[in-house]
Parts: sequence; C-alpha cells; structure tokens
Amino acid sequence: MSATQAKDERFMRRALELAQQAWGQTHPNPMVGAAIVEAGVVVAEGWHVIAGQDHAEVAAIKALGRKPAAGASIYVTLEPCSTSGRTGACTNALIEAGFARVVIGAKDPYPEHAGRGLEVLREAGIEVVEGVLAEECADLNLIFNHWITQKLPFIAGKMAITLDGKFAAASGHSKWVTGESARADVMRWRRYFPAIAVSANTVLKDNPSLSSRIGDEVWCPQRFVFDRTLKTFEADTIPQIYTDTYAPKTTVLCADAASDCLRTRAKDLNIMLWQLPEAKGHLDWQAFRKRCAEAKIYGIYVEVGPTLATQVIEDALADYLFVYQAPKFLSDTSVPGIGSHRNSQSMEEVFALRNLRHASFDGDRLIRGFLSK
Amino acid sequence: MSATQAKDERFMRRALELAQQAWGQTHPNPMVGAAIVEAGVVVAEGWHVIAGQDHAEVAAIKALGRKPAAGASIYVTLEPCSTSGRTGACTNALIEAGFARVVIGAKDPYPEHAGRGLEVLREAGIEVVEGVLAEECADLNLIFNHWITQKLPFIAGKMAITLDGKFAAASGHSKWVTGESARADVMRWRRYFPAIAVSANTVLKDNPSLSSRIGDEVWCPQRFVFDRTLKTFEADTIPQIYTDTYAPKTTVLCADAASDCLRTRAKDLNIMLWQLPEAKGHLDWQAFRKRCAEAKIYGIYVEVGPTLATQVIEDALADYLFVYQAPKFLSDTSVPGIGSHRNSQSMEEVFALRNLRHASFDGDRLIRGFLSK
Repeated sequence: MSATQAKDERFMRRALELAQQAWGQTHPNPMVGAAIVEAGVVVAEGWHVIAGQDHAEVAAIKALGRKPAAGASIYVTLEPCSTSGRTGACTNALIEAGFARVVIGAKDPYPEHAGRGLEVLREAGIEVVEGVLAEECADLNLIFNHWITQKLPFIAGKMAITLDGKFAAASGHSKWVTGESARADVMRWRRYFPAIAVSANTVLKDNPSLSSRIGDEVWCPQRFVFDRTLKTFEADTIPQIYTDTYAPKTTVLCADAASDCLRTRAKDLNIMLWQLPEAKGHLDWQAFRKRCAEAKIYGIYVEVGPTLATQVIEDALADYLFVYQAPKFLSDTSVPGIGSHRNSQSMEEVFALRNLRHASFDGDRLIRGFLSK
Repeated sequence: MSATQAKDERFMRRALELAQQAWGQTHPNPMVGAAIVEAGVVVAEGWHVIAGQDHAEVAAIKALGRKPAAGASIYVTLEPCSTSGRTGACTNALIEAGFARVVIGAKDPYPEHAGRGLEVLREAGIEVVEGVLAEECADLNLIFNHWITQKLPFIAGKMAITLDGKFAAASGHSKWVTGESARADVMRWRRYFPAIAVSANTVLKDNPSLSSRIGDEVWCPQRFVFDRTLKTFEADTIPQIYTDTYAPKTTVLCADAASDCLRTRAKDLNIMLWQLPEAKGHLDWQAFRKRCAEAKIYGIYVEVGPTLATQVIEDALADYLFVYQAPKFLSDTSVPGIGSHRNSQSMEEVFALRNLRHASFDGDRLIRGFLSK
C-alpha cells in the first residue's frame, strides 16, 4: 500500500466514525460522514444527523466556516448526490467550496445514479479518488442500500446459537447462549434497525422488552410480534410490550384465523393488529414487507428461535442473517435445531451466506451476510 | 507498545517461522526456533529439526559460526533447557556464547522446570525477557505440552460442519462442507500429528487415504480405524488403507466381540489389530491412550462424523477440538447432528472450548480449543 493510500484509508476511517455518530437515526437516508483535510490535518468534520438535515459534506463545510485552503481534500463515506433533493446537490456544494480532491468510500448504490456524482466532480476539474474502504462504507448502510434499489424494507434475521446450532437447553433454558459482550452488540443492532420482530413463542417464554439498552440510553424500535392466532393475548399475564410506555410502538401480526375474542382483547389493550394473508403455513412475509413499506418502515430486525429460523432460511424470508455463535456444543438431540425434515440429497442444497463479515466478542463470534435466494 | 516490544515481537515472529520449518517432525520434542540478532539485524537462524539433533539455540550458534558480537541477543520460542539431555543444557551454550540478552516466548510447560532456565541465565548476568508472543509460542507445541505434563498422548478431534452443526446431506453426500483452503489446512494438521484416526463408517463411506498431501509432498501418519466389530473387513471392496504403500502404518482398533473370521481376514492382509476393552458402549479410549503411549505415539488427530463427535464431546474422549465451520446452513432435521438425547436442563450443561484460537479460510472458519472436562 502506498503512503497516499494509507493516508486516504486513515482519513476515510475517521469519516466512517463520524457517519456512525448517527447510528440508526437517518432512515430512510444513509449514514454518511465527511472529513475536510488541509495539509494532512483534519480541519473540519460533519455527518448526516437525520433525514431532512444537512448532508455530511455540507455539514463539514459549515463546520469549517470558511473557504477550504488551496489543495484541500474532503473524505466522504458515500458518493455525493448530484440530484438536488431537500438539501441541494452535494456535488455543487463541493465544487463551489473549491476542493482540489474528493475521496469517496462507497458508490451510490442506486444503479442509475452510481458514478454520476463522481463524473460531475471530475468534469469540474476536481481530482476524485473512489473506492477507499468501499466495502466498509457500503456495509454501513445495509438498510438504505436495499431500500434504494428494491423499494422494500430490508429484513434481517438474528440468532444466537451454539456450534451445533442449538438455541436453548431441552428445558427451554436459554440464558445465555452468548456472553455479555455479544449481547451488547445485539443492542447496538437493535438501535440500527427502525423495527424489531419476534415470534409469539418468544413473547410468551421470555416476556422481553425488545428495547435497545446501551449504557443509560434506552431506545425502543417499532415492535412486531408474529402471532398468527393471537395466542399472546390468551395468557394470564399480559406481556410487557403490550402495556409498557412504548406499547403504542407494538404491532401484532395475525392471520384471518385469529379469534374475534382475542382481537377484542388486543383492541382493549390498544395494541395495533395487522392482519396478513398466510403462505406456506405461516404469515405471508411478502405481504408483511409491503405493509411495512406503506408504513415507511425501512428495516426489520427479526430475532428468531429454531422455528422462525427454519422459515427464514428455507423460505428465504429474510435478506440477511446475523448469526452469533458461542464456542460451545449443547450436544443434545432432544432439543429442536434449525431445519425441516427435508431429506437433502447434496451439499449443493445448503443455504449459504455471502458478503460475509465477522466480528469477535470475548470468544463468541458474529458471522453476518446476505442469505442467498 | 514500546519500540523495544515491537522489535522483540518482530524477531520472535521470525523465530516462530523458523520453528515451523520442522512442522510435525520433532515428536516427542517441541518445535523451537531461534534467531540471533546483532545491532537490530538477524545474523543467524536455527531450529530444532528432529529429536536427537541440535536444539534450536545450538543450531543458531553453529549457523553463526563465530562468537556473537558484544551486546548480541538471541530470540528463542521456548525457554532453553537447563538440564542436559542428549544434547547438553542450552542454558550453558547461551552463557558460553556470551549473549547479552535472551528473549523467550513460552515458558517450559513442565511445572518443575518452568522458569529454571530463565533463572540460570539471569544468575549468569544475562538480561532475560520472557513472554514475548508467549501464547503463540506455546500454541505451537500442543502435543509436546500435553505429553510432558501428562505422559499421555494428546488427542484432538476434528470436524467440518455447517453453521447448524451438520456434516453431510441426508443422502450422506458430504463433498464438501468446507472449501479448498480449509481442506488444505486439514492437510497441514494431519502433518502435525504423528497419528490420525477415523471411524469404520468413514472408511466404508469415503475409502480415504488418510495421508497428508501438501503440494507434491505426500506424508502418511500412523493410521487408526475405530472398528469395534471389524466391519471394514466385511466389505467386498478392501479399503485402500489396508492395501496401499502405507498399509503397515494402519492399525485397526477392535473389541473382544470382533469375529474370529474377520480377525483372520485382517491377519491375511497383514493389518495390525489392537484389541481394546469397551466402555460406555464404545472402545475404551483410556486404554487406547495408554496403548499409544506404549507405542510412543504422542498425538492423534481424530477425524469425526456425528457419532464419534458425540462420544468425543460428551465423554470428553479428546483433549482438544478443531471445528471447521462453513458459512452455510443445511437446515435439514432428517440429518443426524451432534449429541445424544440427553434432555439438558440448563445452558450451564454445555461443552465449552477454552483457550480459543480462530483462523479464516475463504469464508470458512476454524475454531479450535481445549475441550472442558
């Protein structure tokens, strides 16, 4: 790696850090960070804070509060927009500011726009370097990248399993598969996604809060429960997500078959119901996706146990998987694992993850990637 | 990290590379590497090639072919011996050579000797730095470390599984769970261990060669087959490991119950049989260990499928596990997984790995560690 490349990566890494200041707060926009560098020193920083406010480039220029020095560079994690939305084209702002060099991380994921911003800058005589830490910069915006290309929400499944793919002991005891540090990472991803979803079984068994708790900060995403028959309303104890401060953020997904009595109970608790068609013996996730799109929910983090994991994997319900794996074996065939009794004939019939990313948490590992369809 | 620490790690890393020149060839001795450094430059290198030949320190001193310069350092991956065996105490050689500074990786794993070599050197007025890349240096000698403390062979299980802990499709098709690069790493570990073991089922299903093939080099370890009833001698096709060039390196482990007729067939093929007692419904591995110790076999690499994996894990038959895991799900409950129907009551009842080490092979991962007892 040349000295210039090393320097570019260093400043891009700073821009990535800046982008992450707005972790989970920019939907449907991407997280973007920008750093202005004069003579090898970062002199101003900016990031996109929330949709409707300044893009990162403009925020950095405003933070500088003067014209950049001759020869100044700006590092941006994402290709600057060349079409003026709510905030004006960033390419214009960069040209007007008079930058000599623009260094870009990821290209615009929207095929029709990709490269156009770079072209505009080059035509204006600016030196443009692209693809610096491109994978990491693109990885930052899993939800945005999916939304902008598919116009459908990004659905990710999350599971915590042993090396032999088990979620809990035969008794149901599951606290904990992974350690504290891996569980803290889950909180971070709960904050990333605008919505979280779990099965009715998880609600009945764990009575979870489904909030993101990072230090003292508590944040509650939109909460969905997959509950075809509304059995979570049958229990004597009312689950906390139906009565806590964030109860208005809870929506229960049910089927036509759900009983009127239980529907009434949900209504009494002021819990919103979404009735969905069924497909392959479970709620139709395609319909769920569309309903989320209508509700402007751009990403859903589905925390799965073995049953939901099997549906998610075999029916390709999710776009992406987060697999936390603890370095231990349960070694118990009396415990349900992932999968249906599908009598596979070849190792070609596996469900593989691609564009893998790995992280390590005190011995536990996170493997995440796109689920092949 | 200080500049001195960084420098020490750099030269120790070189010593580690040197040690590995003798990968798998030094049993029952450890692999050890040594680098002599004068004025910040490596001027001579050595490693322990094979039991009975020079220790690494002496090899490096001989390679230098003169007195080290004033102020010279020597980097050694393992604490120098202070007791004279076949080759004389290395501590004496270092003192006589006149080194100013000795930098050590791992301490002598034998509790009664640990630190004694360092003491001898310090008493002679030499500056001794210990613990540089200590974990990596100790990890190099899994077999030696175990043998020297337990006087029993080191048994390691190896498996290649999916994220949901499966070894093959329902049809038995298993080529391949992991990719080429992970399989090449298996060849490397086959070369590390003096012996390899597999189940009778593996022999019947795959008819493997159980050799280590690295580039053009083919090497055959001692080969063991766990075959309680000698069913591998019942097949119409004779497995290649009973007839190939290395057939004298094959030993079949059977029980008292094995039929006389099949014993005769084994004798006709000149295949050695070890009759072992049984324990918990399988061959008694404790007896196997002792028999290996008598035969001066110091380490066994057991390649396991689901049945053997379950025994190895639940009955703690192995000391260590190599778990290769591919980033994919088989998602098929018609395929046997790891474990017995043991009705676990708590996540405390797991079988954990400790002293973990991770490696990555084109998306596949190796997690290895000691199996808790």
